[in-house]
Amino acid sequence: MRCPDAGIKIGSMQPGTRDKITDVPGVRVGHFTLDTPLYKTGVTAVLPSEDIFENKLRAACFVQNGYGKTTGLIQVDELGQLETPIFLTGTLSVGTVWQGAAEYSSGLCRDKGQRVFSVNPVVCECNDSALSKSEDFPLQPGDVLKAVEDAREDFAEGSVGGGTGLVCHQLKGGIGSASRLVKLGDTVYTVGILALCNHGSLHDLTINGERTGKSILDIQNKEDPDEGGSVIIIMATDAPLSDRQLKRVLKRCTVGLARDGSYLGQSSGDVFVGFSTCEKIRPGSCNTRSTETLDEMKMNYFFRAAAEGVEESVLNCLLSSPRTVGFDGQIVRSLNEYGAEVRGNSEE
Amino acid sequence: MRCPDAGIKIGSMQPGTRDKITDVPGVRVGHFTLDTPLYKTGVTAVLPSEDIFENKLRAACFVQNGYGKTTGLIQVDELGQLETPIFLTGTLSVGTVWQGAAEYSSGLCRDKGQRVFSVNPVVCECNDSALSKSEDFPLQPGDVLKAVEDAREDFAEGSVGGGTGLVCHQLKGGIGSASRLVKLGDTVYTVGILALCNHGSLHDLTINGERTGKSILDIQNKEDPDEGGSVIIIMATDAPLSDRQLKRVLKRCTVGLARDGSYLGQSSGDVFVGFSTCEKIRPGSCNTRSTETLDEMKMNYFFRAAAEGVEESVLNCLLSSPRTVGFDGQIVRSLNEYGAEVRGNSEE
Amino acid sequence: MRCPDAGIKIGSMQPGTRDKITDVPGVRVGHFTLDTPLYKTGVTAVLPSEDIFENKLRAACFVQNGYGKTTGLIQVDELGQLETPIFLTGTLSVGTVWQGAAEYSSGLCRDKGQRVFSVNPVVCECNDSALSKSEDFPLQPGDVLKAVEDAREDFAEGSVGGGTGLVCHQLKGGIGSASRLVKLGDTVYTVGILALCNHGSLHDLTINGERTGKSILDIQNKEDPDEGGSVIIIMATDAPLSDRQLKRVLKRCTVGLARDGSYLGQSSGDVFVGFSTCEKIRPGSCNTRSTETLDEMKMNYFFRAAAEGVEESVLNCLLSSPRTVGFDGQIVRSLNEYGAEVRGNSEE
Amino acid sequence: MRCPDAGIKIGSMQPGTRDKITDVPGVRVGHFTLDTPLYKTGVTAVLPSEDIFENKLRAACFVQNGYGKTTGLIQVDELGQLETPIFLTGTLSVGTVWQGAAEYSSGLCRDKGQRVFSVNPVVCECNDSALSKSEDFPLQPGDVLKAVEDAREDFAEGSVGGGTGLVCHQLKGGIGSASRLVKLGDTVYTVGILALCNHGSLHDLTINGERTGKSILDIQNKEDPDEGGSVIIIMATDAPLSDRQLKRVLKRCTVGLARDGSYLGQSSGDVFVGFSTCEKIRPGSCNTRSTETLDEMKMNYFFRAAAEGVEESVLNCLLSSPRTVGFDGQIVRSLNEYGAEVRGNSEE
Repeated sequence: MRCPDAGIKIGSMQPGTRDKITDVPGVRVGHFTLDTPLYKTGVTAVLPSEDIFENKLRAACFVQNGYGKTTGLIQVDELGQLETPIFLTGTLSVGTVWQGAAEYSSGLCRDKGQRVFSVNPVVCECNDSALSKSEDFPLQPGDVLKAVEDAREDFAEGSVGGGTGLVCHQLKGGIGSASRLVKLGDTVYTVGILALCNHGSLHDLTINGERTGKSILDIQNKEDPDEGGSVIIIMATDAPLSDRQLKRVLKRCTVGLARDGSYLGQSSGDVFVGFSTCEKIRPGSCNTRSTETLDEMKMNYFFRAAAEGVEESVLNCLLSSPRTVGFDGQIVRSLNEYGAEVRGNSEE
Repeated sequence: MRCPDAGIKIGSMQPGTRDKITDVPGVRVGHFTLDTPLYKTGVTAVLPSEDIFENKLRAACFVQNGYGKTTGLIQVDELGQLETPIFLTGTLSVGTVWQGAAEYSSGLCRDKGQRVFSVNPVVCECNDSALSKSEDFPLQPGDVLKAVEDAREDFAEGSVGGGTGLVCHQLKGGIGSASRLVKLGDTVYTVGILALCNHGSLHDLTINGERTGKSILDIQNKEDPDEGGSVIIIMATDAPLSDRQLKRVLKRCTVGLARDGSYLGQSSGDVFVGFSTCEKIRPGSCNTRSTETLDEMKMNYFFRAAAEGVEESVLNCLLSSPRTVGFDGQIVRSLNEYGAEVRGNSEE
Repeated sequence: MRCPDAGIKIGSMQPGTRDKITDVPGVRVGHFTLDTPLYKTGVTAVLPSEDIFENKLRAACFVQNGYGKTTGLIQVDELGQLETPIFLTGTLSVGTVWQGAAEYSSGLCRDKGQRVFSVNPVVCECNDSALSKSEDFPLQPGDVLKAVEDAREDFAEGSVGGGTGLVCHQLKGGIGSASRLVKLGDTVYTVGILALCNHGSLHDLTINGERTGKSILDIQNKEDPDEGGSVIIIMATDAPLSDRQLKRVLKRCTVGLARDGSYLGQSSGDVFVGFSTCEKIRPGSCNTRSTETLDEMKMNYFFRAAAEGVEESVLNCLLSSPRTVGFDGQIVRSLNEYGAEVRGNSEE
Repeated sequence: MRCPDAGIKIGSMQPGTRDKITDVPGVRVGHFTLDTPLYKTGVTAVLPSEDIFENKLRAACFVQNGYGKTTGLIQVDELGQLETPIFLTGTLSVGTVWQGAAEYSSGLCRDKGQRVFSVNPVVCECNDSALSKSEDFPLQPGDVLKAVEDAREDFAEGSVGGGTGLVCHQLKGGIGSASRLVKLGDTVYTVGILALCNHGSLHDLTINGERTGKSILDIQNKEDPDEGGSVIIIMATDAPLSDRQLKRVLKRCTVGLARDGSYLGQSSGDVFVGFSTCEKIRPGSCNTRSTETLDEMKMNYFFRAAAEGVEESVLNCLLSSPRTVGFDGQIVRSLNEYGAEVRGNSEE
């Protein structure tokens, strides 16, 4: 179940066909999921294009809260370019997934008779140690390739891939996605969002302005721990945003998270990474290149699209994730178990 | 009228006595207001302490959107210190107010038989050109002193001082304030917020989750222009936050703005400046000094306080600002004219 | 006298015709100089193009040390654009010059029957209070216009304009400039530097690797105070650098300063601002625009050009500035008085 | 051989006993070196204290050039804290070393009957692919522990650990170190530097102002490729610098590199990480803690110390590194082979 199915309409802009990040042409998402009694973890690969290792894309990042272990950001910031898929996984698997990405890149080079000389894998993480026995390091570098090979446009949300073991607003978290269309003259651009959700407190969960989390908390009759955990946002677009403009849009992801009720808690890595598929960059191929850039006055459409897309992605994640039992018996409920409370919101 | 009077309770934390930034001991606010048919402008001075020119305070800033003309920030960032009051005014008056602050500082030095050698005035601005004939540069440097001399704990909100000519969510904007208390063990700290509000669209205005602005727009039967204008947030606290910690808290001001319905529009200077009164710093007086610093694990209280304080400050601004006619006859209505819509929100 | 006259050749790249920032086509520099027994101050205007108020240019800044009062930087950073000339003046004149720039902009709008709505003057400063009785605020806003009207390609260096009252490496400082050519294929680009020099200690002054300052200090038989004061670097180019690429180049200005012997002292505003004249930007005129961007692999040429240009500009400043007596009788000598020591360097 | 042995005295400040980073009490350095015909690589561990995993230290970073893969920086920036040793290795080994650090941390937790929940390894890299067949991923996670167990105060410089396969100024590079003493009143503080050197062109190599590299190039009669490769600087001190102050000092590392002749080339990760051992931080143990902070006016001593320490560290690296033959037969000479040229410098 997703927002549209639940009658929840976030914001005023129109979603794309799938209402997912893969509405941006060329973007695909794949998962490798490890879901056993002991381990709830995995890898999700966001593939920005067919040939990202060869043709770099414009990219940017914004670190709303740096209490996280994401790799690759300083180079994205310096060069305004992305050169690998973006990988999402559990905190303690960052090294393994980095290694898997390097081996994958090495393999691609070898296939072309070249040495891999350097690579800058972007690996983002949320901590799945509450549900998964992560200290056993259950993932292998080769699982990265499996995630890449699974890449498709119609990917699953919820407790899959890097989102398998996450908890969001004290309910079962994981992966959610959404998209919004921006019409400028005769051209329609797409802004796609994918969120890896491990953040927020139930007390604060808000759906379209309704304090749904508070109502659920009353039912549960439980105390609510404070906000913790992390959230990663991946933003894709086919609009010709420069790296600076991408960063400006990413700074609005916070708006969507805030409307869902988060205040970006202290012990949280809130990291936003974005890219545009508008131009394939081959450094060294010429002295200067001709590129398209969006007029700055048109940025508001993209700000709103990102804010709405993030707000909905978190909710799609919560609605897609089933009740889950952790390795130590801890039960994390699904938002879907509270249909009446959710419907209460959607009816207005 | 303010939120408490309207029955609007923002968030879960307790406000201070006045529910204003001046709940932080030592902080005072003064206004110089120029309100004539042609000019709606002024200066607001936030005085962090009695002797800010001599004893610097820990400070930080965060630029959510840099489309603004605020002065003084690079030094605040470099040194983590504030050495003047913070002045709020209209965009085209930044030079005049900077000059007024320098003259004021020069006068203080002269009184002590010293030369002023350097000073770093922090001047923040929002554009009041829509209501005020700002191109006539109606303010004088001496007006800065008048604002300082007006400083008090029980200051006015709404269309006063630097907020006289502002428009917020397409309603009359200006200045609003709020505060929140943080209890840590036996100690109660205060987080105070003052907002200079010139941002947002009516379409998006949200009060405690209700889309109040949309309802008002239906009544007005008008088209809603896109979000524009700026917002400045001043945050004060007596808690021993380091400059780094102050910046972390400031990054959560966005949360409050988002909950009021803003997505931080493109042509907007969204600038947040904060200080702590916990320690008076006299550079050069010793080799090292002993200072208190908050434990990082306690930051969530301050994040929540800032988010709630900002969310309420904008609403207090809107509720305190009366209908205003601009120099060219443009009428900007007050949120207060829509009591039924506002009460609709407060009744839940 | 300048480096080439003194037989000093900095680096390996070729300078432009004038070896000044105005070798970049369209760039002009004007001064208003106030040089009286009491006052040694002024304004220097770097005009990036004929029509900068209407057609913005790509721009960036880098703050190596933020202990300074430069205005306008947060907007340059946010939008990657410059919309006024860059003005250089004494610390306490920042407000006056900001006001002068706003009045100038207002006048230009009035001439076209428009209101000035907003403007983002970039005003950079060094402290001339050691030689000038700056607390009297001797400059007037109208002096800004005089500096603009004085703009020319063949401008003076040394103790002029905003550099009139400065001290650099404990010798007479002020304004210096240099340029370097970058050949890429059939195209020759120019990198121009202008430095406002108020920084450094004599002890550390180094010319082409020789510790010239130490030799002079031995002659003077004086104690050397520690490094203080500020340095502003303006960098211009006609190469199609993006705002991100301009910032990368600006981060190499530090290299030139270091080779002259500075270590960027603590009480110093070391601020670098750069722009490219490659493209005139009219926001709002279209949805997207086609632009040229330099290939990232060609950046090294520009890094080296900036480093060499800055290293030489500081020396050109020192060689162009005559011995000066301050308002209180303090004598600041000129590097030219130590010809033997300087020649010692140039002879290798 | 090191600078003092070669009669090269960099700067005016006094080094500590060993003239190495380990002059800062508590700091130790260990290497794991893999030096075979095919592989020239390894891991170097900088241990800031005995118990860094339990007691965090104040820390900061500055990215002069982000074209690198260093991990852990966003958390260091956010929290101003370091919680692991700093590991140096080859580019393609970042994942392996991250994994090794996580396993090491996990082991320490297990020994105390705890789960490892999260850890933020700081792994810095330079590319050793020119000399080492790095695409074989020859390092194992367990090699990290070996580097840690090797930690000592009197560690080796040159072609060891993470520096085994590096090339610096087109000569054999690797690891170099130096230290400087800062006397404030009765207290003597130490600033220690360790550099991982893979940067620079021979053409530009400068020793104490002499263009030694140019002389060597004449002998070699070779063309000089442009500057490439990376440099990592680790800075340690026992002075009570805050995280903001540490970052200010780190921004001066560029000065030392520039004096050695580098201009921080484009394809280079120039990353500087620093920490202070002055205070052990146990988050969560109290509401506020009392800490010492250096007076801002004393920062110049530390700026100079960092600049001199970096300038010497690079030279110590070059003097300590022997001629090396790469996996494909490429010969990289040692600076020591050019004794006459080096002595030429030291004789003045």
